[in-house]
Amino acid sequence: MQIVVLAGGTGGARFLRGVRSAAPGAEITAVVNTGDDVTLHGLRICPDLDTVMYTLGGGIDEERGWGRAGESWTVKEELAAYGADPDWFGLGDRDLATHLIRTRMLDAGFPLSQVTAALADRWQPGVTLLPMSDQRVETHVVVTDPGTGRQRAIHFQEWWVRHRAALDPAAFVQIGVEAARPAPGVLEAFAAADAVLLAPSNPVVSIGTVLGVPGLREALLSSPARVVGVSPVVGGGVLRGMADRCLPALGVEVSAEGVGRHYGSRTDGGLLDAWLVAPGDAADVPGVDVRQVPLLMSSAEATTALAQAALDAAGFRAAGV
Amino acid sequence: MQIVVLAGGTGGARFLRGVRSAAPGAEITAVVNTGDDVTLHGLRICPDLDTVMYTLGGGIDEERGWGRAGESWTVKEELAAYGADPDWFGLGDRDLATHLIRTRMLDAGFPLSQVTAALADRWQPGVTLLPMSDQRVETHVVVTDPGTGRQRAIHFQEWWVRHRAALDPAAFVQIGVEAARPAPGVLEAFAAADAVLLAPSNPVVSIGTVLGVPGLREALLSSPARVVGVSPVVGGGVLRGMADRCLPALGVEVSAEGVGRHYGSRTDGGLLDAWLVAPGDAADVPGVDVRQVPLLMSSAEATTALAQAALDAAGFRAAGV
Repeated sequence: MQIVVLAGGTGGARFLRGVRSAAPGAEITAVVNTGDDVTLHGLRICPDLDTVMYTLGGGIDEERGWGRAGESWTVKEELAAYGADPDWFGLGDRDLATHLIRTRMLDAGFPLSQVTAALADRWQPGVTLLPMSDQRVETHVVVTDPGTGRQRAIHFQEWWVRHRAALDPAAFVQIGVEAARPAPGVLEAFAAADAVLLAPSNPVVSIGTVLGVPGLREALLSSPARVVGVSPVVGGGVLRGMADRCLPALGVEVSAEGVGRHYGSRTDGGLLDAWLVAPGDAADVPGVDVRQVPLLMSSAEATTALAQAALDAAGFRAAGV
Repeated sequence: MQIVVLAGGTGGARFLRGVRSAAPGAEITAVVNTGDDVTLHGLRICPDLDTVMYTLGGGIDEERGWGRAGESWTVKEELAAYGADPDWFGLGDRDLATHLIRTRMLDAGFPLSQVTAALADRWQPGVTLLPMSDQRVETHVVVTDPGTGRQRAIHFQEWWVRHRAALDPAAFVQIGVEAARPAPGVLEAFAAADAVLLAPSNPVVSIGTVLGVPGLREALLSSPARVVGVSPVVGGGVLRGMADRCLPALGVEVSAEGVGRHYGSRTDGGLLDAWLVAPGDAADVPGVDVRQVPLLMSSAEATTALAQAALDAAGFRAAGV
């Protein structure tokens, strides 16, 4: 049995943990957003890949939801003492070893997918961890500069981490996406899938970015599996992240129905066969099997139950469950 | 008044601190060995330059004599957890920020001398810190492999840090030295010097490597200043480092006299006008003004007195001293 999950960072990582628990006998492939990736201080940083890897490998800071448990910040402080820019990125000492190895391997010519596999060899996440693409795709946010009043595009990390998404986004652009191709294994995973799940990740800068890789959306739509999405919006808001700041830029209402309609029905050229929304979130998405299930991943049990509900909606019954 | 000091790591750094203290009004230029430099985990590491910079800038671990005070080793431990080689090098978290900035600047095309100046801007060492060369020169040690019985050349750091100099050195070779040139400012410093001092650093892999840069020895010999050396050997042994393991490979006796004769008299094509040895270390070096003075840099006062003795031997009297 094969399951493919499209995922961003923290929410996607936790959802994947639930899927792994709900379907212990299945082969799970995570196709992870790399649009948040950034090079800082000469280090190639892949926040979503690392969040998924650390979360599934037992190394995540559970409270923060990103970075390593027991993290320290010595290198970051020293870089700041030299006056090295930028100083606003959360570059942890433990985390930094991951970036060093990744950077060396990329510099040596290894593609990101092979680098990711090498790093995952330590963490044994229990799923196949694939970047959406081996080519660089970096999300930039078009904002109006408060000083000059002119529009400019800043890296997603600068918008989110430095400015805490305070600058109104006029648009999200994926630099490099035209030349990107799905990473090795992605198309094969869709073709062989028994279930395709969209994690409750940001529909714009996570799931949207993954689907923006040329050929990837088509491969998903051609999959023999049912496609089930999980709403990242609960009761008109988001539990974490900044999807509520991203969706309006695309004219999408911040609601489970709004996101469901944005993804659209597979019967109508959209993505979804089924759409999971929180109890009480009435959502009318024509052509889609909308189900109300508890969405809060507040415990391992709740997360597993959510994943099971998603697999149920995909018509998938894991062996032994 | 201008003073040039040739220096390696810990001993050279401490001696420089004494010179700075003994001649507060002077312009001091340190020409530092870069033969120990190495690239590990993608980071360009310059141990001697950093030791001098941290020592003069107040950031050194005084007890260890290298690396940063209050150092931690998180990144090193994490790299080891990934199985990344090598795991034997003392890569500290605080120190690592220096390497990151250096590596970025070198990758961006800045020469090492400019990178060094940029780093020193934080530390304000009070001397002009020059690498011996902007070109890469890396000392390798020819050893006999215990397993195969065949000779091979290993990087100095591997010989010293990994093997603790336990493998007998057949020779020391400077990879890249043919293409090296003295760094900007080195030749000018010799030409303008009122005193040239050879710190009590390793005569083979520190001072010897500096002098091996094509044109550098000639510039030193053409200097109008007197050249004064300080013996790194006291009573037939070394206080730290592994000069006692290096000198025999060149057929040089491990004694103040042996090293003095190895450097040789300037009247005879050698380097020295004067040679400072420890009290009790009788040394006959023809053509050289040999002086017995306390060499132990056991306190700030003792170190300053040693530097003053060296400046005296150079016929140099600092203003205000």
